[in-house]
Amino acid sequence: MRALVYDEKLKLEKNYPIPTIGEDEVLIKTKMVGICNTDYEITKGYMGYKGVLGHEFVGIVEKTGANVDKNLLNKRVVGEINLGCNNCSYCAKNLQRHCPNRSTLGIYKKDGCFSEYFSLPKENVIVLPDEIDDITATFVEPLSAAYEIIEQVHIKPDSKVAILGDGKLGLCISLVFNALNIDYTHIGKHLEKLEISKKLGAKTMLLDEINNDIRKTFDVVVEATGSKSGFETSASLTKPRGTLVLKSTIATNPNDGGLNLSGIVVDEITIVGSRCGQFKPMIRLLKKGLIDVKPLVDSIYEVDDFEEAFKRNAMKNTLKVLVKF
Amino acid sequence: MRALVYDEKLKLEKNYPIPTIGEDEVLIKTKMVGICNTDYEITKGYMGYKGVLGHEFVGIVEKTGANVDKNLLNKRVVGEINLGCNNCSYCAKNLQRHCPNRSTLGIYKKDGCFSEYFSLPKENVIVLPDEIDDITATFVEPLSAAYEIIEQVHIKPDSKVAILGDGKLGLCISLVFNALNIDYTHIGKHLEKLEISKKLGAKTMLLDEINNDIRKTFDVVVEATGSKSGFETSASLTKPRGTLVLKSTIATNPNDGGLNLSGIVVDEITIVGSRCGQFKPMIRLLKKGLIDVKPLVDSIYEVDDFEEAFKRNAMKNTLKVLVKF
Repeated sequence: MRALVYDEKLKLEKNYPIPTIGEDEVLIKTKMVGICNTDYEITKGYMGYKGVLGHEFVGIVEKTGANVDKNLLNKRVVGEINLGCNNCSYCAKNLQRHCPNRSTLGIYKKDGCFSEYFSLPKENVIVLPDEIDDITATFVEPLSAAYEIIEQVHIKPDSKVAILGDGKLGLCISLVFNALNIDYTHIGKHLEKLEISKKLGAKTMLLDEINNDIRKTFDVVVEATGSKSGFETSASLTKPRGTLVLKSTIATNPNDGGLNLSGIVVDEITIVGSRCGQFKPMIRLLKKGLIDVKPLVDSIYEVDDFEEAFKRNAMKNTLKVLVKF
Repeated sequence: MRALVYDEKLKLEKNYPIPTIGEDEVLIKTKMVGICNTDYEITKGYMGYKGVLGHEFVGIVEKTGANVDKNLLNKRVVGEINLGCNNCSYCAKNLQRHCPNRSTLGIYKKDGCFSEYFSLPKENVIVLPDEIDDITATFVEPLSAAYEIIEQVHIKPDSKVAILGDGKLGLCISLVFNALNIDYTHIGKHLEKLEISKKLGAKTMLLDEINNDIRKTFDVVVEATGSKSGFETSASLTKPRGTLVLKSTIATNPNDGGLNLSGIVVDEITIVGSRCGQFKPMIRLLKKGLIDVKPLVDSIYEVDDFEEAFKRNAMKNTLKVLVKF
């Protein structure tokens, strides 16, 4: 089968073996895959991963292991990307995404979905309702990561919230916050991207419009830029005793002077690291039809044009690039 | 009156004016003052403060303003160090320590207690019960800062907790945690200081005894070293979804490579900045006789020997230095 493999360089293999499945697993035939910045970072050495890329997908169950309900066959599915050991305190609490022995689809010790077929444990697979189309389905993973904020932080009806960053991540968070009727301001650098939030009815603001009147006024600020200056700006927007959600790993460069957390102590700010989320609540929300992901789609490529797709994704300011199988 | 003033250098003034008090203030005659590392940092430029130093004290009310209950006269008191505007949303919630217009005794825009007399608003002053002696009373401020952790973080009876750092701050936290029956491990560099916690019945561990068996196992870790490496060690001890309390401002040096927060995101750790605490719960606890601060006292100086006292405080590994008036 065709599979997009990273091993020091990225290559579309033509004869990669179709995975054999265990008795508790399913084989999925890929329909569509989204390119995530994590895929791009892996090609720059992130996690030291080697293997098939990809973790945002929609596909069809092609085969089921002996212990798997046969009703799953031919169902259109998405799947959670963290594979737990099912034998630890985290897995016992349905927190496979923190299992110390986990592997992660296309990121860590587990071939990903950027191939014609791939396998997943049955418990990771979720059947899609008809209301959710394929393009929307490939967004379930990043949208769930946005919804994770709500699992971790109590955002109240009258909480004053800001999202910093108008890339794919910031926009996914904006879509989810809007659907949940949160009162937020979306702050970024790009008028045309902020326009997506503005059309939803959100308040928007350009980064250089930030002034002292709004510093230290937000109950919750979501950092979605992944930059050191983004962290510092987010901290400056957070009110004393407020919450700063880190939705992106912060790149600190040895030459950039490092992060200073003394303001976090003085203002007793709570910083919440936030990563992957559960799919089921997100699917429930998508089924309600309250989220339109189309404005976030940059382009859709055929898998044979994967190099073009990755090149497009690597360009500054590109929104979501999807690949069809 | 004599007053220890910092203005580019530290000097014991002999004829500093006794403050006049407003109608809502009291004049306090100082009995004893503790030297805090913040005092030392101010002499290195922290907060750009100029004026009388000192914020840890016990004293006697010498004079009361027109609007102050006369029963306060001649009472032995301690006092909260943040002076709010009493006109903002933080002050309305009894969070004067986060009032955007606050001044802070001996730290910011308000002469401190390192003088024979000083003033405080009546609402900052708390009468001491007889059970609390003068030495213990000078510890109310740093012990309240330790107790603040419990106001911010829900530490459960079965929570596994670590304190990193065995300086004055770490030891104050140890005393409070012990009195509250928290199950904690005190980790530090100095056997003789950890011995204080060990005698309380706490588990103790030297920093270089940390191994992979205990990494990522603590529900709550309190960072009380103020160093970058202490932050990194604390983060490595915190379990996924656990809480890291920053009790000390983290010094990042432009040459040290900066802090990297990506592990905080991956493990979804919550970081809680924590500063000053309320005095009343701490006084209630001290009154129960469950805390003995004596092992934390290094030495007691007369005010005229302030230079010796500050020199002693600046020496590595010195515990609390007190000054009598």
